[in-house]
Amino acid sequence: MQILINEMKHWMIEAGERLKTALAQEVLEIDTKSSRTDLVTNLDKQTQEFLVERILAFDETANILAEENGKHALESLDGRVYVIDPIDGTMNFVLEGENFCIMVGIYDDGQPVLGFIYNVMKEEFLWGGPSIGVYLNQDRVKIPTIPSLSAGLIGMNCVMYAKNVYHMQEIGHRSMGVRMSGCAGVELAHMALGRRVAYISNLSPWDYAAGGAILAALGMKMSNLNGESLNFKDREYFLAAPAAIYDEILEIALNPEK
Amino acid sequence: MQILINEMKHWMIEAGERLKTALAQEVLEIDTKSSRTDLVTNLDKQTQEFLVERILAFDETANILAEENGKHALESLDGRVYVIDPIDGTMNFVLEGENFCIMVGIYDDGQPVLGFIYNVMKEEFLWGGPSIGVYLNQDRVKIPTIPSLSAGLIGMNCVMYAKNVYHMQEIGHRSMGVRMSGCAGVELAHMALGRRVAYISNLSPWDYAAGGAILAALGMKMSNLNGESLNFKDREYFLAAPAAIYDEILEIALNPEK
Repeated sequence: MQILINEMKHWMIEAGERLKTALAQEVLEIDTKSSRTDLVTNLDKQTQEFLVERILAFDETANILAEENGKHALESLDGRVYVIDPIDGTMNFVLEGENFCIMVGIYDDGQPVLGFIYNVMKEEFLWGGPSIGVYLNQDRVKIPTIPSLSAGLIGMNCVMYAKNVYHMQEIGHRSMGVRMSGCAGVELAHMALGRRVAYISNLSPWDYAAGGAILAALGMKMSNLNGESLNFKDREYFLAAPAAIYDEILEIALNPEK
Repeated sequence: MQILINEMKHWMIEAGERLKTALAQEVLEIDTKSSRTDLVTNLDKQTQEFLVERILAFDETANILAEENGKHALESLDGRVYVIDPIDGTMNFVLEGENFCIMVGIYDDGQPVLGFIYNVMKEEFLWGGPSIGVYLNQDRVKIPTIPSLSAGLIGMNCVMYAKNVYHMQEIGHRSMGVRMSGCAGVELAHMALGRRVAYISNLSPWDYAAGGAILAALGMKMSNLNGESLNFKDREYFLAAPAAIYDEILEIALNPEK
């Protein structure tokens, strides 16, 4: 596993260097997908191709689930699956030039093995898994100790918050404050580092696979907003939090009285 | 003016080093002010005292308006006024350990002269004013060219967005996306650097004085949400945007049809 970890970090950092160079040279080709705010760039595609190529050269039996280029569905999660988000937070990549991540999650028969979140401009590499623990660059990450929803900041999706689905405004109100970064990787890394009490959004598998493996290693829970397992297929409402806070949030989210 | 600029940067960077040290040593004393989410720390107070002391040693006639320690009101804006926010984004300082700023704005008879926003953990120092232009660290900042609301990200206050005051959800919907960082300095710096199309919040003078001087130097507009001048006294609804986009947003905000 150590060889895989070292190689993966090496590939992702190399991919990150290419993104930095492209930003500095201002050579992005920007396109839209499902809507005017669903952006994709030539760099999303190139980064994914680069990572897929490296992974297949390393492990020719790899199953790959990824955001771009028709790899967005898998028949099953059997065997080893690599879930790739070449640029998580493409909008931020284009409009901020920061707050975007390269992410890879590795699952065996649907169980988390390793997660890698590389915040390119911050040069923060968060990685780990249930059998090895979690690391930020070279330093072991301690399990965050946030006592309750009321003690921390919560990351949320802006549309869900505006529409108040699952009482999200009440959930936000009970926290110390709502944050929206526009990047699942940024938010899930914040959670691992104790900077968020929870994260609620509307995500696809490549948005949560890497973070999910890391949060599992820290004893945190994730599911859809009905408390059901994520399906690793479609975009779904998503909740991640430390176990006690997860229960506290679901109780508000599913309360029919409100 | 060059001596003042150099000194101010020097003081603010020194103050920033003390904040970094305090975060590393985990020695914060945290208190609440008006509500459970209105935090203040020993470092807010110490940082303000340090800056006030340095400013008065440099300019003994200085009028000072600042967040902590009873300096939060001035009889008038006559003469030279230094407006200090010792830690903008105290919540982030405490709970994230990043995304907070030290800010100073300098005004002569109510007119902006200089603004300084120091994002401590990013070590990004944004400074300038109408007579000298704007700089990020050593580099001149170009005037951002965002053509319309629909082309950029917008920073918003979470409570105003949830309550949909002044049609804020519609304004957010017409942008490329809503961001909430919990720090006015972070958002106003993003605006100066072209990473935001606008910022709408509920702010006190120390939250907008530094950024206001910088945005004025870039030809941008700011006011309350009725299009009236900010009063530099009370907390007010706040809008800042490039001139054309400012008009576009006010038209939505003040439209009685919606």
